[in-house]
Amino acid sequence: MQTRLRCDYLKNKVMSADEAAQLFKDGMIVGTSGFTPAGYPKAVPLALSRREDKGEEIGLTIITGASVGDELDGELSRKGIMKRRYPYQTNKDSRNKINSGDVQYADMHLSHVPQWIKYGYFGNIDIALVEAVAITEDGNIIPSTSIGNANVFVETADKVIVEINTSQPLDLEGVHDVYSTKNPPNREAIPILNATDRIGTPYIPCKPDKIAAIVFTDIKDKTREVTPIDEVSKKMAKNLITFLNDEVDKGRLPKNLLPLQSGVGSVANAVLGGLCDSKFEDLVVYSEVLQDSVLDLIDNNKVKFASATSLTVSPQRLDDFYKKFSKYKEKVILRPQEISNSPEVARRLGVIAINTAIEVDIYGNVNSTNIMGSRMMNGIGGSGDFARNAYLTIFTTESIAKKGDISSIVPMVSHCDHTEHDVMVIVTEQGVADLRGLSPVERARCIIDNCAHPDYKDMLNDYLEKALDGKYKHTPHVISEALSWHDRFLKNGSMKI
Amino acid sequence: MQTRLRCDYLKNKVMSADEAAQLFKDGMIVGTSGFTPAGYPKAVPLALSRREDKGEEIGLTIITGASVGDELDGELSRKGIMKRRYPYQTNKDSRNKINSGDVQYADMHLSHVPQWIKYGYFGNIDIALVEAVAITEDGNIIPSTSIGNANVFVETADKVIVEINTSQPLDLEGVHDVYSTKNPPNREAIPILNATDRIGTPYIPCKPDKIAAIVFTDIKDKTREVTPIDEVSKKMAKNLITFLNDEVDKGRLPKNLLPLQSGVGSVANAVLGGLCDSKFEDLVVYSEVLQDSVLDLIDNNKVKFASATSLTVSPQRLDDFYKKFSKYKEKVILRPQEISNSPEVARRLGVIAINTAIEVDIYGNVNSTNIMGSRMMNGIGGSGDFARNAYLTIFTTESIAKKGDISSIVPMVSHCDHTEHDVMVIVTEQGVADLRGLSPVERARCIIDNCAHPDYKDMLNDYLEKALDGKYKHTPHVISEALSWHDRFLKNGSMKI
Repeated sequence: MQTRLRCDYLKNKVMSADEAAQLFKDGMIVGTSGFTPAGYPKAVPLALSRREDKGEEIGLTIITGASVGDELDGELSRKGIMKRRYPYQTNKDSRNKINSGDVQYADMHLSHVPQWIKYGYFGNIDIALVEAVAITEDGNIIPSTSIGNANVFVETADKVIVEINTSQPLDLEGVHDVYSTKNPPNREAIPILNATDRIGTPYIPCKPDKIAAIVFTDIKDKTREVTPIDEVSKKMAKNLITFLNDEVDKGRLPKNLLPLQSGVGSVANAVLGGLCDSKFEDLVVYSEVLQDSVLDLIDNNKVKFASATSLTVSPQRLDDFYKKFSKYKEKVILRPQEISNSPEVARRLGVIAINTAIEVDIYGNVNSTNIMGSRMMNGIGGSGDFARNAYLTIFTTESIAKKGDISSIVPMVSHCDHTEHDVMVIVTEQGVADLRGLSPVERARCIIDNCAHPDYKDMLNDYLEKALDGKYKHTPHVISEALSWHDRFLKNGSMKI
Repeated sequence: MQTRLRCDYLKNKVMSADEAAQLFKDGMIVGTSGFTPAGYPKAVPLALSRREDKGEEIGLTIITGASVGDELDGELSRKGIMKRRYPYQTNKDSRNKINSGDVQYADMHLSHVPQWIKYGYFGNIDIALVEAVAITEDGNIIPSTSIGNANVFVETADKVIVEINTSQPLDLEGVHDVYSTKNPPNREAIPILNATDRIGTPYIPCKPDKIAAIVFTDIKDKTREVTPIDEVSKKMAKNLITFLNDEVDKGRLPKNLLPLQSGVGSVANAVLGGLCDSKFEDLVVYSEVLQDSVLDLIDNNKVKFASATSLTVSPQRLDDFYKKFSKYKEKVILRPQEISNSPEVARRLGVIAINTAIEVDIYGNVNSTNIMGSRMMNGIGGSGDFARNAYLTIFTTESIAKKGDISSIVPMVSHCDHTEHDVMVIVTEQGVADLRGLSPVERARCIIDNCAHPDYKDMLNDYLEKALDGKYKHTPHVISEALSWHDRFLKNGSMKI
């Protein structure tokens, strides 16, 4: 215990998860650590769930960094404890509750969240519930596999509850770099000029008397499985790398590229993993999340440094990763999401942003969140923070979904998360559409020719030609048919007929 | 001439506009000064137009800061010289050519343009054509009523042509602050901590041998008329000010607010002008454009300092403004649009962004550009640079258009420029919808209740209820009817029947 809880003053705050769970009251706003299922609190949410089992009715607003594991999102959704949720999730049960209207969910740019907390836009944060690997002599908190908004919740909440997770290696100490911006009009420049720069403290500053409870647990991060890399992902990765090579050849990118940002999930992981077989070296990552592929790139000496707010390693290699963590430690830094996702820093460093789209329309608008306009998948996450501010903004998607019954290239997106103004390049397994400098109609031809699936090319061209028969030819649409592809799918199960 | 052209080395570069126009060749990419119809070149474009009159065929790509006057956008559009246009325009004839498909137009975030120029995304810039009030002893260029991208074009173009405009007061010298960022990976923080900070030079640095021609002219800026403030605008301004007062009362804004950004046009001018009658004092402006209303606010001692990239004063008061410029000089700074529209600076200062929408949907998405999805109006301009990064993001629109045949609040926007993730507050003459922290369905109820015109409230509620009958209730839509309001207007001339 002495290595994990080094502050004598706090030893009397150690209690069981069930005791700590008594601190929560109906209607509270709770901010938790966690970003992608890494570094989120586990024992206290499970204890909260047990209070509900005993017939208590507790409703909470839960604000996190990004997605968290089933002990938090799943359990509190299933029990009806979670009433309101910000800003991102990926849990099956919370998604269902959001889509059924039982959980009020607002899907936000991840860089906006720390600001909103500090500006008071969410209201007063009652409790900060954060996972840690240890508490220092002075009461400061050493986070675990992610930072997310943990530092901002600790800074702003009335009370802090810390889960010290002994399954998280103590070796994580030193990997974090915690920095928090002041509110306007007193905000200063974020002094990062390189992805490697350290600007803060290796812990979350916390006054000991703010800590109301300390709970010991050893429940491991429930990270997501990463599916094996399939042929379609390999083709996308190959197309992306060919495009990046061309940019280097044209003198528009340095040989070792610029800092890479990549979205989360199996496809993003596969696409980034494709760099293992590329000629690129001395790469740097400035992203939200480090997945398996980045570890592979570090192992292969392709990536020399990686900055993020979360380390989310697949369950298959998690134990191995913990054991070998020391070898990654000098090459990895974890930052608060206010910094990892900062538009200021992303634009200054000139990141190459690679994110996944659900669907793209012929004019280059991207839907990242709502299937057929209404069904929330996960959320926009940090994609907007990077896409708008990147040196190069790339979206990847397979050209079809549902075995071809859905075309990922449509006349008009059914929900817009990234506008035509923010999208430079589309990559599918079919090819690459470089949209920079093109007018909307030129973009449409470029996307249809290079990215659409052959089964849908004629249909897309027919739509474009019919739209061009209209009077207004800048962004031509047949407004009565713009969403007819989605309507057909909803009615007939296919966009084709 | 000595006061305007102080570099002896350059005196032999003085020539007529017609001679300078001979430097342009078919297919060239030309970057010009100008931001809103202020500070754009006039004599050389008119001379180019005369070349076309003589039967020559010249096609050009024109890149500016933002909108420019009729001598450039109008004349070159009418003559077919303008083939491709970036990033913003407001001219009737260029708009018509864009909508007829004769001019290829890409409508861009204004902060992206200087980066794209320096990254080489537009290709090589053949000629920089910039208006100036004078050239210094060393060949440096003192801009006139705007900077826009003039400095970046001078920095990157093969040749520079300067129009010294003697109708622009020499007193403008000293008001500019020119600073240019380096490309990644060598970019540094933009060292602005306050709207008043000077960080650059009062001129555009230029080596004399880069200047290929100097043309003297005295054609005045053709600024746009500002229509008198009507009752609807007054109501919007009143609603906005009530909202801002509430924010101060709740402790979420300082008493003198935070730096104000306001879009361009009569409504924006009227809304900002409403602050003249408010209790606010010691206000600061950090915006793209200073219109008449900001001068009024300075005159009334409401605004103590204003930063922008353009001074666009209505024709009615232009002469008077020139005469009295010295009294504004200490209170105004003009910056390159790379700095005035910088997301980094906007977020650091915490601007209050007030921009105009064409239409807003019930979930908070905003269309700023394309009427009925296809008809380009002007462009997104800088609204996205500010909206995404502001402390408070506000969009204003009258609740109806076309005497009530169009509802500005619709089930789904027909074009999306600002997504639900970027819009905090909607203001119409009906009221204010504060969307912060609300789920999509809560936003819909808030917007319909507070902002929609009474004629359309029932219809909007009917749509929402029908959509809520569907399976997916996060962002409920009836996809076959989502754009039916626009379709009705296109077919019947009214959204009502």
